[in-house]
Amino acid sequence: MKIPGLILKQMYTLGSLRNAADGVCFSLKNRLADATLTRLAEVSIDGSRVPIERLSLELPEGEVGASTIGPHNVLPFPLSRVVRVKARVEPLAKGPHEIALAFDTTPFGALSFKVKDAIAEEKEQRTTVPYDKENNYSPEIVRQRQQFVEQYSGVQLQHLNRYSFDPEATKGNIENFTGVAQVPIGFAGPLRVNGEHAQGEFLIPLATTEGTLVASYNRGIKVLNLSGGVTSTVVGDSMQRAPVFVFGNARHGREFARWVDDNLAAIREQAESTSSVAKLIYVDKYLSNNLVFLRFNYSTGDAAGQNMVGRATFTACSWILDNAANIRRFYLESNFATDKKTSQINIMRTRGKRVTAEATVPRDVLLQHMRVDPETLHYHGAIANIGAFLSGANNNGAHSPNGITAMFIATGQDVANVAESSAGIVYTEVNADGSLYLSFTVPSLIVATHGGGTALATQRECLEILGCRGKGKVNKLAEIVAAVVLAGEISLASAISSLDWVSSHEQYGRNR
Amino acid sequence: MKIPGLILKQMYTLGSLRNAADGVCFSLKNRLADATLTRLAEVSIDGSRVPIERLSLELPEGEVGASTIGPHNVLPFPLSRVVRVKARVEPLAKGPHEIALAFDTTPFGALSFKVKDAIAEEKEQRTTVPYDKENNYSPEIVRQRQQFVEQYSGVQLQHLNRYSFDPEATKGNIENFTGVAQVPIGFAGPLRVNGEHAQGEFLIPLATTEGTLVASYNRGIKVLNLSGGVTSTVVGDSMQRAPVFVFGNARHGREFARWVDDNLAAIREQAESTSSVAKLIYVDKYLSNNLVFLRFNYSTGDAAGQNMVGRATFTACSWILDNAANIRRFYLESNFATDKKTSQINIMRTRGKRVTAEATVPRDVLLQHMRVDPETLHYHGAIANIGAFLSGANNNGAHSPNGITAMFIATGQDVANVAESSAGIVYTEVNADGSLYLSFTVPSLIVATHGGGTALATQRECLEILGCRGKGKVNKLAEIVAAVVLAGEISLASAISSLDWVSSHEQYGRNR
Amino acid sequence: MKIPGLILKQMYTLGSLRNAADGVCFSLKNRLADATLTRLAEVSIDGSRVPIERLSLELPEGEVGASTIGPHNVLPFPLSRVVRVKARVEPLAKGPHEIALAFDTTPFGALSFKVKDAIAEEKEQRTTVPYDKENNYSPEIVRQRQQFVEQYSGVQLQHLNRYSFDPEATKGNIENFTGVAQVPIGFAGPLRVNGEHAQGEFLIPLATTEGTLVASYNRGIKVLNLSGGVTSTVVGDSMQRAPVFVFGNARHGREFARWVDDNLAAIREQAESTSSVAKLIYVDKYLSNNLVFLRFNYSTGDAAGQNMVGRATFTACSWILDNAANIRRFYLESNFATDKKTSQINIMRTRGKRVTAEATVPRDVLLQHMRVDPETLHYHGAIANIGAFLSGANNNGAHSPNGITAMFIATGQDVANVAESSAGIVYTEVNADGSLYLSFTVPSLIVATHGGGTALATQRECLEILGCRGKGKVNKLAEIVAAVVLAGEISLASAISSLDWVSSHEQYGRNR
Amino acid sequence: MKIPGLILKQMYTLGSLRNAADGVCFSLKNRLADATLTRLAEVSIDGSRVPIERLSLELPEGEVGASTIGPHNVLPFPLSRVVRVKARVEPLAKGPHEIALAFDTTPFGALSFKVKDAIAEEKEQRTTVPYDKENNYSPEIVRQRQQFVEQYSGVQLQHLNRYSFDPEATKGNIENFTGVAQVPIGFAGPLRVNGEHAQGEFLIPLATTEGTLVASYNRGIKVLNLSGGVTSTVVGDSMQRAPVFVFGNARHGREFARWVDDNLAAIREQAESTSSVAKLIYVDKYLSNNLVFLRFNYSTGDAAGQNMVGRATFTACSWILDNAANIRRFYLESNFATDKKTSQINIMRTRGKRVTAEATVPRDVLLQHMRVDPETLHYHGAIANIGAFLSGANNNGAHSPNGITAMFIATGQDVANVAESSAGIVYTEVNADGSLYLSFTVPSLIVATHGGGTALATQRECLEILGCRGKGKVNKLAEIVAAVVLAGEISLASAISSLDWVSSHEQYGRNR
Repeated sequence: MKIPGLILKQMYTLGSLRNAADGVCFSLKNRLADATLTRLAEVSIDGSRVPIERLSLELPEGEVGASTIGPHNVLPFPLSRVVRVKARVEPLAKGPHEIALAFDTTPFGALSFKVKDAIAEEKEQRTTVPYDKENNYSPEIVRQRQQFVEQYSGVQLQHLNRYSFDPEATKGNIENFTGVAQVPIGFAGPLRVNGEHAQGEFLIPLATTEGTLVASYNRGIKVLNLSGGVTSTVVGDSMQRAPVFVFGNARHGREFARWVDDNLAAIREQAESTSSVAKLIYVDKYLSNNLVFLRFNYSTGDAAGQNMVGRATFTACSWILDNAANIRRFYLESNFATDKKTSQINIMRTRGKRVTAEATVPRDVLLQHMRVDPETLHYHGAIANIGAFLSGANNNGAHSPNGITAMFIATGQDVANVAESSAGIVYTEVNADGSLYLSFTVPSLIVATHGGGTALATQRECLEILGCRGKGKVNKLAEIVAAVVLAGEISLASAISSLDWVSSHEQYGRNR
Repeated sequence: MKIPGLILKQMYTLGSLRNAADGVCFSLKNRLADATLTRLAEVSIDGSRVPIERLSLELPEGEVGASTIGPHNVLPFPLSRVVRVKARVEPLAKGPHEIALAFDTTPFGALSFKVKDAIAEEKEQRTTVPYDKENNYSPEIVRQRQQFVEQYSGVQLQHLNRYSFDPEATKGNIENFTGVAQVPIGFAGPLRVNGEHAQGEFLIPLATTEGTLVASYNRGIKVLNLSGGVTSTVVGDSMQRAPVFVFGNARHGREFARWVDDNLAAIREQAESTSSVAKLIYVDKYLSNNLVFLRFNYSTGDAAGQNMVGRATFTACSWILDNAANIRRFYLESNFATDKKTSQINIMRTRGKRVTAEATVPRDVLLQHMRVDPETLHYHGAIANIGAFLSGANNNGAHSPNGITAMFIATGQDVANVAESSAGIVYTEVNADGSLYLSFTVPSLIVATHGGGTALATQRECLEILGCRGKGKVNKLAEIVAAVVLAGEISLASAISSLDWVSSHEQYGRNR
Repeated sequence: MKIPGLILKQMYTLGSLRNAADGVCFSLKNRLADATLTRLAEVSIDGSRVPIERLSLELPEGEVGASTIGPHNVLPFPLSRVVRVKARVEPLAKGPHEIALAFDTTPFGALSFKVKDAIAEEKEQRTTVPYDKENNYSPEIVRQRQQFVEQYSGVQLQHLNRYSFDPEATKGNIENFTGVAQVPIGFAGPLRVNGEHAQGEFLIPLATTEGTLVASYNRGIKVLNLSGGVTSTVVGDSMQRAPVFVFGNARHGREFARWVDDNLAAIREQAESTSSVAKLIYVDKYLSNNLVFLRFNYSTGDAAGQNMVGRATFTACSWILDNAANIRRFYLESNFATDKKTSQINIMRTRGKRVTAEATVPRDVLLQHMRVDPETLHYHGAIANIGAFLSGANNNGAHSPNGITAMFIATGQDVANVAESSAGIVYTEVNADGSLYLSFTVPSLIVATHGGGTALATQRECLEILGCRGKGKVNKLAEIVAAVVLAGEISLASAISSLDWVSSHEQYGRNR
Repeated sequence: MKIPGLILKQMYTLGSLRNAADGVCFSLKNRLADATLTRLAEVSIDGSRVPIERLSLELPEGEVGASTIGPHNVLPFPLSRVVRVKARVEPLAKGPHEIALAFDTTPFGALSFKVKDAIAEEKEQRTTVPYDKENNYSPEIVRQRQQFVEQYSGVQLQHLNRYSFDPEATKGNIENFTGVAQVPIGFAGPLRVNGEHAQGEFLIPLATTEGTLVASYNRGIKVLNLSGGVTSTVVGDSMQRAPVFVFGNARHGREFARWVDDNLAAIREQAESTSSVAKLIYVDKYLSNNLVFLRFNYSTGDAAGQNMVGRATFTACSWILDNAANIRRFYLESNFATDKKTSQINIMRTRGKRVTAEATVPRDVLLQHMRVDPETLHYHGAIANIGAFLSGANNNGAHSPNGITAMFIATGQDVANVAESSAGIVYTEVNADGSLYLSFTVPSLIVATHGGGTALATQRECLEILGCRGKGKVNKLAEIVAAVVLAGEISLASAISSLDWVSSHEQYGRNR
């Protein structure tokens, strides 16, 4: 089994070169595939070979002399393992050094490569936020950080340090936990949702600091409830990771794309081996120049799934790198995912959930409660479409990110996904009976009811209030969010069309 | 002074028709310009004239018989005033009714118009969140709402109802305040910023629930500090409101656009009359079909300014509607602003602050701390550019919205503006000495240090920690945010280029 | 077999109502599916029934009394047939009239529907271009048109009426043929192309009126030839038609999308029944609001195929309309194709051919012939990428449409497809040996070597000169066009980077 | 007056190094500003100084010894002059050589710089198209080229070589003129246009090879004439060139942008010095990273003006480079123009003419002639808007490029500008009387009635038939083109809405 240079270099990383008390150390990490080390053939530093008896390997189970490794004393070297190599030689000078390495493995045979690493300058004494390697979430270290912030900034913390939960709970959600942002929550609704998963009336928690937002959504909710509620439907679902492969020419790229099709079953097996949840739905292939962008599309259960699909795609790509021909370079991300960005591809082909909320608003309800007739609202919509087309906007509606953001903060979503979730398509018809058909599609709504911030204190409570905590609830949450969006649309669109829009801000005033 | 029908209808709104104890009532609101009422000539309901002696007006200072109004007893009718009209006639049936109205005014002369309104159905008994018209922020009403939420949802609140401030403080920031979302804050840094306003090292509060985010930014900050810090510059500043005017044809639209140019001084005077802060910088005119979109660009001091420019533009448009010819319809918003959306126009022509952060990273620093050389990072950037171009993304960088969102939540910004603020342009050069020039422009960063949520408890503390609280600080905050973005870019871009990227997630784990 | 109202109305069209000498006539056209008429049950005009014996049908084989039709004398009514119905009643007044119709069919059973049509005003005497219904391409009618143009405009034709072929040859290519535009052709090259289909050196015919264009491409060709020629590869191929289906709600739309997947084999059979060439590759489904956009992707042999896929999709949709549930409205086109437009979807997912041209230009060749080094050209490319990103351009290259348009005119392509074909992606790398890797992808190049204008006189000659006339040659042509594009890119990009750019225009001058 | 290195290198180009009979030659070209040479101080080749008496300068007026040049015998060195320098030294070896040069000038003082150039390989004997340096448009050389094409390709030319004009006429329009493409022209119309410049009925020449195109436009024309014709209006006009300036950092860029504003009068003076026609209207400044993109907007009279504005901007930039601070690099083009591309900036801010065509089509006319009612057409328009929005198209209409391209070919426009001209915005309203308001805006229509191909034989005839030949006619032509576009829109939109669309293709058939 031949290992091309590219893959080899990506397979093992050599680094962390430093002078230790009894020699020079560096680490060797297996990054792409399980292997077994059957001999450490050579280590040279700056061209000078280190005698084999001066080499040892630091393993979790203790230090092993390099010379003891052999066909009858093999060293398992699974994916992700880091082996620390120590060479009992003179300390190295500061600056870069070249390390050459040769070893035998199963199943990859004899491998050798060279890399450069450097002995770092003495660490300068940097001021940093206090950090405890052992337990960075204990009351003590949190208090130390609060004190550090107070001393550094001269600001006496009175609020940021007030929270109602054990900091330990934030492990995996944040590093250097020091306190909380207290974001006001107001409730709107109850809103009637006629979903496939969300059925009934829901109290809507909105975390925001923008005056009139809750009131505006509440106005819309009133109108939608009087219209029989919102029909909300998840029509699409996929989460992506998009690696890029670089070839010597476009023809190699085209062959690779075909190879991917032919080997999709194996690729799927690899991808799905990393999680019991992530399922690979399909892989899009975008060819340009000597580049092939693969866009892996997964379903990810109740999690938003960005990390899950990252791992899955990485594993699939490791297999691809092992098996496909002609790949020159590879990156796990290529701006084709497009994580934390809005994009035409997300609008067209979904990221997260694609959800549509719909309602038919009786003419009288609209007139009485919003002071606007369906024709005017529809007419303004056509003009706003031209505005969105000319300005190159990612949303032809009024303000869907307002409701989405407020719900994201309240329910522990990754709020930066507002970037993707801000896209939207509004569409209206005036029916023959004079009523208004109003619908809104959020093409890339990224929500979770499991993982991320959903288990945190207030966030979990909000999910519970919505009946959306935990497994099997993500589509329900998506339906509710889209329904809330629709309430905001009818509210602001009516205000614009009826000219009430500024006055509502005036009435409630602004915090100064 | 002739008042065309269009403007008249927009000038006065008639509504709130209902049967009161002693007659039929409706309200008349002045929405566009100060006037004086010199005679109420006629009120007819469904074609039947109401005798003048049966009409009275309810004013703040008491009820006035309609017949007493006359040239010698005029009724001031300033902008925004609501006058309640009562007609002592038989109660009206449910459903729509037509009301005709004629009156004399100064300076507009004799005016008359007809509108339809309806007697609403008896209010159905809706379940709603408890609301206190007098004081909706008192401890009592907040407690009532908490109990309502608990009863409605069956969820015992233990965290959402824990906050460290007086709910009264949220007036103007939220309606139906019930509690808070507690969003974990971790600190990164200190980060050295070489701005024009932000000079020195800053502790960065990041409110997030996404594991590895703080760690990732911290890694970038370390590298940037070792590179001498971040040069951060605000290169543009404007906030928009974009009304649309509909004409009978394109030629009228073109004449109007010229008229706007010719009358810019007067338009500016009107716009700036509404605030001591908002300054009208320029007005873009976009013509399409029979539509003219005006995009008003303002500077708004330390506020984000969306409401401020809404009021200013509304007032300017009132004057325009009074003075310009041929306008058939008018809406204060047109999807050209483009509020809460990302758009090509924002990317090109700025919304909020346009900020560029720059650093030159020495080759060794990048190699030692990020395990990637400048060439590889630059090379991947070129490929990611193709990815962004093909996918139609609004950002060719790695993940700027992560840092922006975390700072927005921490510092009380309008987080829904992540929609606009998610756009970004990264650009790199490898210098002759092997170092990396890295820069990132956020073309539409919407930040404030005054107004909105900036005065709330934890939010204010975070602004104080940054030294960005209050007036004259908004550019400083913008510079810091952009500098933080740059830290995130170097961190993730390096991770992708060096393939470390997934492993950092693995190491810190995810909350489940 | 139940026929819903929607499909019925689309199945038969009633029209062309007029007063004839001996009664009132109108036509009935079968538009969706083969049927057999077994009885004409009723014809009413304006509510008044026409006695069956006063009705007759005009068929190609003569007039038939309506009463003669019956189970034993059925009337075949295949797709596209037009049956003329005559009712021997009094002439109708001008203006609209309602016609009701009921008849029995196999296999659709009893059908009935009402439509309105109008007796038109007397045809006003319009001046129109002379037209001969029998033979509109004869020398006589062409001459008449030339004379008409001369008389109408007062311009004596001396050139437009000079052409070297029989006008008959333009049948199917143009209506009202009157003469030709003589567009100058210059030759560039020969250009060495290393394609899979185009192998060798090709003389390039360029039809243009823009000075310096041929010279500029020639300069690029020289450089590319010295670099060993251009590697050109067709990496994608599909032509689209994109109908839209309107549903009562999003859920019906989602069910329909699944139904399409489940019935793809049958849909393909229908689509491919219309041509021996068109093959349905895949169908993309885009859901938004209550709409489902289907994007049918075909391979179309040597034809560009827009009409071929229109027919195929129409037939497939007829079957879909007959078989799928809940469709409310249907249109054969929806701006998702996107014919004669540039679009992100075309850039991503191909329209016509997706072709990449590549070359590696030795450093010395570039320096000596273009006076620019690879680094500068690469550097400018990175800046031009930012320019394209900010301006929202569909092409990050220099001027690919120049060469494409000149070849399109010369070789009889549908030149309006420059809209789609104008998109492009340029990508460069500086190799370790200092040479320049340059590649250009045209993601939606629409070319044909069969059909359209390819058989016309000069157009065919140009195709023959390229060795691209007729069947099996379309990929060869696509490769050559892309190779020519690359020549133009290296030429103009070098000129910009070396600042020679304006001077070449100056030197060759402009026609005035 | 200090000359920074950057500008100096751009000011003078040194090149064309070769071994001549009596020494080594190279050329020196002045590219940026007038100067006077007062002394040639030094020429060194590969570090070895050439004695001054061995140097001579070849000028138009003869050869001059370098030593004779001095304060009393100065050498004028105006912009664009090329001076040939000869050094009577031994022939140089093949490959690169370094030439150092020092001289004194007025007003720039002492200048010196080094460049590398190479002695080229012996020219390989390449096959090229015959070319006559003296007169490349004579009957002889044209015939030679025809014969060359015939011999090279083996194709006997029978049509391409048939044209009705003197090849000399194509000077400035094409290089290597060899023959013509004969593109069929059909006439549609007459079409009634109610423009400001085009008033009356116009016969429309359409050069196309696409069957049904002329017929389709003719159908639309009929309907529009019955609607009183098309109101056509040019609402915007500007042609661009967009250089980019690179700075050391964003702050320098921002200062530069301000400097441009402060020096606009001088910049305008420079720009307008190059032509009596081009007028600089305004300069847009787009800042990103360390880059400043300037977008110069000009009016260009009756010419399309791309070359005119190239020269004007180049001259303005020369002055800018002489006078502005901190510029590190400069390119005359940056993909912000965006020439031969469609772009959001062109759609928003115009390129060429921005033209709107409008008509109000009576309900009966639409029903009788197009078999579709205004509501259906308007309804489909709303759906097509969603299609265009989702697919990311540059045009929400039906097929404007069809008519534009056919008119461009017929009238000698730069047909590659179909790229820009393909953008379009359609907008409809159903009026209260049931009629249809239909309008179409072409935001970047690039047309000329002077320059380019407009003076060629058939092209001029077509312009004359339209009454659009020559000066002062460009807006008239723009109005007519937009009116034709509107005819195509009503025709195809009706066909789609009424389902007639494919059948018209079937009826007229396709050429095979």
